[in-house]
Amino acid sequence: MAVADIDHLIGLIARLPGLGPRSARRVALALLRDPQGRLLPLARAMESTALSVTTCSVCGNLDVSDPCHICTDPSRAHDLVCVVENVGDLWALERAGAHRGVYQVLGGVLSALRGIGPDDLNVRSLFERLAKGEVREVILALGATVEGAATMFWLQERIAPFGVTVSRVAQGVPMGGTLDVLDDGTLAAALTARRPV
Amino acid sequence: MAVADIDHLIGLIARLPGLGPRSARRVALALLRDPQGRLLPLARAMESTALSVTTCSVCGNLDVSDPCHICTDPSRAHDLVCVVENVGDLWALERAGAHRGVYQVLGGVLSALRGIGPDDLNVRSLFERLAKGEVREVILALGATVEGAATMFWLQERIAPFGVTVSRVAQGVPMGGTLDVLDDGTLAAALTARRPV
Repeated sequence: MAVADIDHLIGLIARLPGLGPRSARRVALALLRDPQGRLLPLARAMESTALSVTTCSVCGNLDVSDPCHICTDPSRAHDLVCVVENVGDLWALERAGAHRGVYQVLGGVLSALRGIGPDDLNVRSLFERLAKGEVREVILALGATVEGAATMFWLQERIAPFGVTVSRVAQGVPMGGTLDVLDDGTLAAALTARRPV
Repeated sequence: MAVADIDHLIGLIARLPGLGPRSARRVALALLRDPQGRLLPLARAMESTALSVTTCSVCGNLDVSDPCHICTDPSRAHDLVCVVENVGDLWALERAGAHRGVYQVLGGVLSALRGIGPDDLNVRSLFERLAKGEVREVILALGATVEGAATMFWLQERIAPFGVTVSRVAQGVPMGGTLDVLDDGTLAAALTARRPV
């Protein structure tokens, strides 16, 4: 069938996160209407990124260079390491401009349910940096879930022998959030961590 | 900046219809995590489609061959032409399996507001087919909007001299639809077009 190419393309687009068959057809149609101006540039950008993307051997970030642009940035604090679960979390912190140090991307959190143990986490390069005495403080910025908490506890115990400061991101009321929509756990944490004004 | 490639890719994805910066990052991350298995195949499918997609010179459909696979399908009724606004509408009718004839894709509807006149519509090949006596019936399947109605009226007048049957898609209550959520225009049309049971 002559149209197989287009159907194949729609099928691939429909498998992207957040897209279904209907939105995939809409996307495909927009691209097909301007093959030279939209479809080809996107194809070329994807191909060039696919061929150049790599995992940073220092921190686990996804970038087109190894070490990544964060690990090689001389203006950043290389002795301040922020531990995150995945690259999406790293991107979020970078957008917020909240962290001027470097990162360690675990690639997951400990989970008995999903069979993720310590060996599945990208932590070796963190302990190498700790052993070299390059690190002054480790910030644990994992999600406030049971698995995130377990992973932070495990990391805390493993980092303690290196004698560096270990901190956790604060829990509390989100910016712009109202108390009545928050869950009990967040409310309790926000009260416990109250600060004098 | 080393990460420019990835940012450029996210920017291109964010410009697709129905996607914003947040969903574009999610899509990009899913692709970047599996460059060989997901990103590269999608890039290759897009490139091959971009280089092969063309507009059918008979009906205006988008396909990888000209004439398209519908116009060259011997099992279809080539004397029954369904006029649609765009390729998305053609795809919708094809998915429904509702039409066993061929199509004419206008590429738009008459609109004084958007400055779309008769010369901007892909109608020449329709009148060529009419002039050759190849057509028995023309089905006008345009949207039930002011512009769609104006376009159907204009086409009706232009097709009349060829002496072929011209019909319109019916208006009424959509399948699974309840009367109380329908607009007045649809209710009136459904009542006017009532049929004996």
